[in-house]
Amino acid sequence: MHRAGRLEKGMDEEAARYTSSLEFDREILEAVIYINMAHVRLLERVGVLSEQEAREAVALLGKLLESPPMLDRHEFEDIHMVVEDWLSRRSPRVGSMLALGKSRNDAVVAAIKLRLKQRVAQLHESIDELCATLLKQAEREAETIFPVYTHLQRAAPATFGFILHGYATRLLKLYPHLRLVYELCDESPLGSAAVAGTSVPLDREYAAQLLGFGKISDNALEATASRDFIIESISLTLLVALILSSLAEELVLYSSEEFSLLELPDELSATSSIMPQKKNPVVAEITRTKVWEVLGLLSTALGIAARQPSGYSLDLQQITPKLWKALDETVSALRLTTKMIENLSINTARSAEACKPPTGIVEVANHLTLNYGVPFRKAHNLAGRLSRLISEGKLTPETFQQTLQEAGVSVGITLEDALQLMEPRRVIHGYKTRGSANPQYVKTAVKQAFQELERQREWFLERRRKMENALATLREAE
Amino acid sequence: MHRAGRLEKGMDEEAARYTSSLEFDREILEAVIYINMAHVRLLERVGVLSEQEAREAVALLGKLLESPPMLDRHEFEDIHMVVEDWLSRRSPRVGSMLALGKSRNDAVVAAIKLRLKQRVAQLHESIDELCATLLKQAEREAETIFPVYTHLQRAAPATFGFILHGYATRLLKLYPHLRLVYELCDESPLGSAAVAGTSVPLDREYAAQLLGFGKISDNALEATASRDFIIESISLTLLVALILSSLAEELVLYSSEEFSLLELPDELSATSSIMPQKKNPVVAEITRTKVWEVLGLLSTALGIAARQPSGYSLDLQQITPKLWKALDETVSALRLTTKMIENLSINTARSAEACKPPTGIVEVANHLTLNYGVPFRKAHNLAGRLSRLISEGKLTPETFQQTLQEAGVSVGITLEDALQLMEPRRVIHGYKTRGSANPQYVKTAVKQAFQELERQREWFLERRRKMENALATLREAE
Amino acid sequence: MHRAGRLEKGMDEEAARYTSSLEFDREILEAVIYINMAHVRLLERVGVLSEQEAREAVALLGKLLESPPMLDRHEFEDIHMVVEDWLSRRSPRVGSMLALGKSRNDAVVAAIKLRLKQRVAQLHESIDELCATLLKQAEREAETIFPVYTHLQRAAPATFGFILHGYATRLLKLYPHLRLVYELCDESPLGSAAVAGTSVPLDREYAAQLLGFGKISDNALEATASRDFIIESISLTLLVALILSSLAEELVLYSSEEFSLLELPDELSATSSIMPQKKNPVVAEITRTKVWEVLGLLSTALGIAARQPSGYSLDLQQITPKLWKALDETVSALRLTTKMIENLSINTARSAEACKPPTGIVEVANHLTLNYGVPFRKAHNLAGRLSRLISEGKLTPETFQQTLQEAGVSVGITLEDALQLMEPRRVIHGYKTRGSANPQYVKTAVKQAFQELERQREWFLERRRKMENALATLREAE
Amino acid sequence: MHRAGRLEKGMDEEAARYTSSLEFDREILEAVIYINMAHVRLLERVGVLSEQEAREAVALLGKLLESPPMLDRHEFEDIHMVVEDWLSRRSPRVGSMLALGKSRNDAVVAAIKLRLKQRVAQLHESIDELCATLLKQAEREAETIFPVYTHLQRAAPATFGFILHGYATRLLKLYPHLRLVYELCDESPLGSAAVAGTSVPLDREYAAQLLGFGKISDNALEATASRDFIIESISLTLLVALILSSLAEELVLYSSEEFSLLELPDELSATSSIMPQKKNPVVAEITRTKVWEVLGLLSTALGIAARQPSGYSLDLQQITPKLWKALDETVSALRLTTKMIENLSINTARSAEACKPPTGIVEVANHLTLNYGVPFRKAHNLAGRLSRLISEGKLTPETFQQTLQEAGVSVGITLEDALQLMEPRRVIHGYKTRGSANPQYVKTAVKQAFQELERQREWFLERRRKMENALATLREAE
Repeated sequence: MHRAGRLEKGMDEEAARYTSSLEFDREILEAVIYINMAHVRLLERVGVLSEQEAREAVALLGKLLESPPMLDRHEFEDIHMVVEDWLSRRSPRVGSMLALGKSRNDAVVAAIKLRLKQRVAQLHESIDELCATLLKQAEREAETIFPVYTHLQRAAPATFGFILHGYATRLLKLYPHLRLVYELCDESPLGSAAVAGTSVPLDREYAAQLLGFGKISDNALEATASRDFIIESISLTLLVALILSSLAEELVLYSSEEFSLLELPDELSATSSIMPQKKNPVVAEITRTKVWEVLGLLSTALGIAARQPSGYSLDLQQITPKLWKALDETVSALRLTTKMIENLSINTARSAEACKPPTGIVEVANHLTLNYGVPFRKAHNLAGRLSRLISEGKLTPETFQQTLQEAGVSVGITLEDALQLMEPRRVIHGYKTRGSANPQYVKTAVKQAFQELERQREWFLERRRKMENALATLREAE
Repeated sequence: MHRAGRLEKGMDEEAARYTSSLEFDREILEAVIYINMAHVRLLERVGVLSEQEAREAVALLGKLLESPPMLDRHEFEDIHMVVEDWLSRRSPRVGSMLALGKSRNDAVVAAIKLRLKQRVAQLHESIDELCATLLKQAEREAETIFPVYTHLQRAAPATFGFILHGYATRLLKLYPHLRLVYELCDESPLGSAAVAGTSVPLDREYAAQLLGFGKISDNALEATASRDFIIESISLTLLVALILSSLAEELVLYSSEEFSLLELPDELSATSSIMPQKKNPVVAEITRTKVWEVLGLLSTALGIAARQPSGYSLDLQQITPKLWKALDETVSALRLTTKMIENLSINTARSAEACKPPTGIVEVANHLTLNYGVPFRKAHNLAGRLSRLISEGKLTPETFQQTLQEAGVSVGITLEDALQLMEPRRVIHGYKTRGSANPQYVKTAVKQAFQELERQREWFLERRRKMENALATLREAE
Repeated sequence: MHRAGRLEKGMDEEAARYTSSLEFDREILEAVIYINMAHVRLLERVGVLSEQEAREAVALLGKLLESPPMLDRHEFEDIHMVVEDWLSRRSPRVGSMLALGKSRNDAVVAAIKLRLKQRVAQLHESIDELCATLLKQAEREAETIFPVYTHLQRAAPATFGFILHGYATRLLKLYPHLRLVYELCDESPLGSAAVAGTSVPLDREYAAQLLGFGKISDNALEATASRDFIIESISLTLLVALILSSLAEELVLYSSEEFSLLELPDELSATSSIMPQKKNPVVAEITRTKVWEVLGLLSTALGIAARQPSGYSLDLQQITPKLWKALDETVSALRLTTKMIENLSINTARSAEACKPPTGIVEVANHLTLNYGVPFRKAHNLAGRLSRLISEGKLTPETFQQTLQEAGVSVGITLEDALQLMEPRRVIHGYKTRGSANPQYVKTAVKQAFQELERQREWFLERRRKMENALATLREAE
Repeated sequence: MHRAGRLEKGMDEEAARYTSSLEFDREILEAVIYINMAHVRLLERVGVLSEQEAREAVALLGKLLESPPMLDRHEFEDIHMVVEDWLSRRSPRVGSMLALGKSRNDAVVAAIKLRLKQRVAQLHESIDELCATLLKQAEREAETIFPVYTHLQRAAPATFGFILHGYATRLLKLYPHLRLVYELCDESPLGSAAVAGTSVPLDREYAAQLLGFGKISDNALEATASRDFIIESISLTLLVALILSSLAEELVLYSSEEFSLLELPDELSATSSIMPQKKNPVVAEITRTKVWEVLGLLSTALGIAARQPSGYSLDLQQITPKLWKALDETVSALRLTTKMIENLSINTARSAEACKPPTGIVEVANHLTLNYGVPFRKAHNLAGRLSRLISEGKLTPETFQQTLQEAGVSVGITLEDALQLMEPRRVIHGYKTRGSANPQYVKTAVKQAFQELERQREWFLERRRKMENALATLREAE
């Protein structure tokens, strides 16, 4: 559009499509309109626009907000040009002033940050929803005997609630990162212009206030050309997707015929076109791919950002769609995971069965050590021998006593004692450490986690309100 | 669609969207139709369909080929279901037989391989076009003095043709990989059914022949669940994008004011919304991002494929769109790079200037060693000192001789001799090794490269014809 | 070592090497010793060890701390076994009790977190040092005219101090992430045992206090098997390396003959074995590779962590060395970058030259708009035309006026006025927005940044002291 | 070492360590010595060295080959400097000539390619060994009933041999890539000098012949600065590791208590320090991490290579160790996987059990369609219903007939017929398609695969001999 001054020829059509960001600018369309409203107000304050010009332009932009344009005309390089062109045709003088002291370089960052604040708030909601669901189910299943595995071998009796609480704990640890990303976005770059600031005396604090930003950026070069905040954001979604991938993997495993610990709801499963007996855990399968989607997006975004000298290059434009994609992937995976967790059924017979001896056999060793002073390594060795007997179906009162002798453990314990020690319900209630699978600890922890969730909700709510109020004021100002 | 037998409830709508591949199945729509045509013919041979039923079904599918369906109804899990449903409504009996001995697992691989053969042929064309352009320009600029850099420091006088030939050489080395990928795809999985083959006596060789595949796969598990061929394909595009990223980087560097060695065409450049003096190399900038796009796609595809036990899981479905995306990105980047290379202009005054002393100073050292037997390390040390004098603007006949003395080199060489030795045109014509920047060698190498391109074209042409003939025969058989 | 109970054969030697972590366990050796000290104290409190046994064992472990063992005997699977074996040979009874209520699963996480707190503090120091250096130089060069580039084209006059402050700003924004990682590590997993807690009544708060951890973990499964904190840590180093890669790229560019804006110190440069005239920016080159080292490490670590069901698997062991490597790479790159920034020299003649017209030409447009009310798009178009005249060496009073006319700008501005407006020093002092390259703003921002650095230092110092005091107390307790 | 001419100060010690490649140059030490031998012969042919000088220098270098130097003196930037220094101290004149017409840029590529040919041959051996083992076991277990899974749900009766043959098939498809990499390396870059060739009239064909290279490179810029062949090599190892990761995952799954299909040998398993009942599949766990190691290495290598302008930069040096690491990781994983496959035991009772109805239920549907003309979709629906009955333990002659009726299938089939149709051994022998799990087809396919392996062995043997003969001749020439 504005090539005439410097370049003689128009852009090659294929090149225009190749370099245009219009295809993925829809995400920031609203934000760009708001930023233009704010810039109009800045120009009014500078004296370049009259109060009436400004008011009318804001009103016009308000209409654009309500009926957004199609973004399919490839003669435009990007959304900024579309908006400027749209306004110029309706208010030529204001349109011709829009680029004064404002570059696409600062405008696009402002738009991304404005939109990202909304998207982070939305991400928070989805995480919150899954956490709450996990915790609710953890509470309900706090006494449901369920094995935990290490090396995919049965490792100890625990409960299903304990496992779900483990996932909620992982998600809760992401909250500082979630807030960090929000705060990185809560900073207005407007007034940075293309790269070094501008001689137009724009009031940057006023711009920030109009758009609900908490502060202004410190360095125009950093503000316009750093995409570190995007890498931070995608890193966050990577962690979310990582946690979901583990949870999904467990759901796939535990709903196989061989494990048969869980059953996924029919409405989240598929059947086969050729093998009618199967019930495929397709939602969990798709969910466990998301971590790779996000890793790919991170690699791409990081790759583009790396080795960029400090001022803006068009390369940076290609980073932004990866951010939105990473958020889309993560939020949809969170939602579907929430549905799966809400609708699981547990095969309690099987899960209890999997906790039978020798699963809890370390309790025998602990008992011998704590109550008889048997050196733990000796007790552990004995337990290993017993474990083998159980696996081979050869544990009898006789082989039990004989094994004690062979292991050099001469204390008055009977097979019946040993079996009682390993009884799953007794085992889990016998855990003595906080953070263990003991239902009493899990229930307390769930309660605390719910309180933490509530505190986090307030934090986001407050910020959300501030932003929404600012935008409403900007939009509706007479 | 076919859930009723095993699952009680229909799929949750959000889950259906989440797990559907329809969005990216458009790429294989035609291929899926062809595969259904072939399967109809197989069923005819088995005796399940009559000749007339088969003929009519193929004709119906031919119509679908001509006016393909919209792929936006999310009640369908994938394209296979769309096609089966479409045919079932027009030819219920054939439709009801389509899944006999054919699973989506083998059908989708067959479709991907069929389509990928076409896409690889198209990739070949784009590489061929760029290679030919590079070679043509290399020939034209074989005598155009141009510096080559190491460590981004001027390293030696060379020619622009030599640089372009270097890129063509890199691309040419990808041809074995290009053919390898084609051949990996030239294998029919049909008859593998879901995972282990089928008791339906399908004639697999006949299926391969109908679709123009060169052979049939050896193991049904590998055929249906390995996506190694996709990883191989994306790896290939990664190498293409890698090479283009280097070329694009050079174009950006050399068209900066500071280098000023090249000028990119106006129609492939952009200007600034706020800094009117600039001419931004946006096409090259976008091009250098493509290697990261492909790395991201590879990481995602690989991540999904890894740790998959041997039978099909829905995870695999998410790999395929990365393949098409990688090809799209690479082909568009190849096309735009070809345009840039075709339309570059060289600032020959600047490029010659950059080759002046001390750029060619190693020639002085070589001369002293070859003609006076001066140990090369001593000669090299002398050249280093001279280089510093030149950089500091202090090289005079006096300082020259004084430096010789200081370096302990006592041979009868004058400053004038030294300057002549470093004269760029003399330097490049003085290179004695094949593969050097000597125009004579570059021209010969270009000629050979053109011949190689021609051989490769024939290879692909032959395969393309075979495939196209088979499909035409299948489609048009009465 | 403890195989006898369950497995009949010893491990295959090649398999033992393949699965051993000894090679990279050196990093956590000290931490593992401290953890064993703490565990001995816990066992004393439980009553399994006498006060004297505990005291003597702690003293023995203190000796091991002073003269650490060689970690090259591959019969040991890992460092935990080495320490247990070492103590068992000196204090058999204590040794035989060490595994009571403690698994390698919780011990290794405790050790990693303890060590990581130290490494994060060290990372903080290196970032702090670079920030301080950048800010010091930014202050010194706040008036040094220097161009800033966008699209690698000269975009605006600025100062070198402004650029350096931009990098400091990016680094400062990482501090919340740095603290977040520290706090993720400041949590004791001890008492989680292998996966679900233990029936041994260990006092977890006491363990945390002994080792200087700020709190205890909430869920044993999460504590032993989540490596999210490692992914968070590597993500942080990725951002550091990303920033350094851009800075290094600028140093390479600006020290090329073509840019000649900076000179890197000789002691951080190399020369060529064959091209004596060159001065290669090798430290910057190696520095810009670090972002890829870290991306690779992150991809590996993430890949291993993904799709892991919730209990420990040996896969996780392979994640840890990536963490240490990422920290090593980042810290060394920070240190060398600090050296480069400290010892750069600026070619002020060249940098001022690069800021001459048309670099500041937007000022002409701004002037016409702000002072004459010329619509900015018209003024911008005029500036584009002038820019082209300047580039072509055709700007004269006559062509200037003629261009004004052609552009339809009829205001009383002379060429001399225009040239004055573009004078670099005037331009930078004329920037009116906070965060711009105006030296006055940069100096203020530097001052604030120094204060922020100071606050961060105190935060880390406090934590460091707490940890060191705890460890000293543990070690020296009589 | 050779800094004096151009740079005034020596290199900073920390910077020297940071930029030195000595740490990972051990891998190419021998190759570098051979290349210096060859260069000495070239210089002899040029006339710069006498026949005697050359002969003595080659003999000296032969000694270095036998007792290689320690590579720990960090005053040397790299291995090239070490060798030149070593020779210079023993034969000053030859030493002082070594850099004539030879740069580290071409020498290092020559050394990497020489060494890589050996490493690729070694990789071939390890792949060959695993393939042979897989095929041998596939033959032995060609009749061993074993389930195959899709979506981790039992999908069809098959055999363990079929699964193993599937993996061998995947590996065999890598051979073209393996040979491609060998051939990319079989090209001598010597004579390319630093970047553009040299005026020293070196006989490049002679150099290639001395070192056993099949051809010479075409373009000096490509030869010295492209690392595409390394990316190709790492991509290959990525595919190997990908295949191994799937196999390892299956071994972990199938050796869990829940699946209990396989037992891993004790000597490749570990036990727990706290849970004595467990037998952990640690070798398989470590093996499945290797794909992430290689993905990380590829990302790093690719990242460094991307956006490099065409001449050598020191960045490239950091790529090479990733290549060796990728090969190390892959070869060790191949070896351990071979051991696991050799020593597995199959729990045939369990694997047969897993193939019982409803696993083969599609056979009922096929039967109804093929023999009674029942539309397949109807038959499939019926099979789904039967499947549910079986899962719920409700299949009786009565419910069977009732279900037939409900599904609208009125043919004379009894429950007994149906059960016979699903009998696992009958199912697998009833597969009619080549490539299916039918033992007859698997055995034939194994035979063909063995022949293919043999052909590939010859290919590599021939090349290996050629290289070894050349090096022996070079080394021993009098």
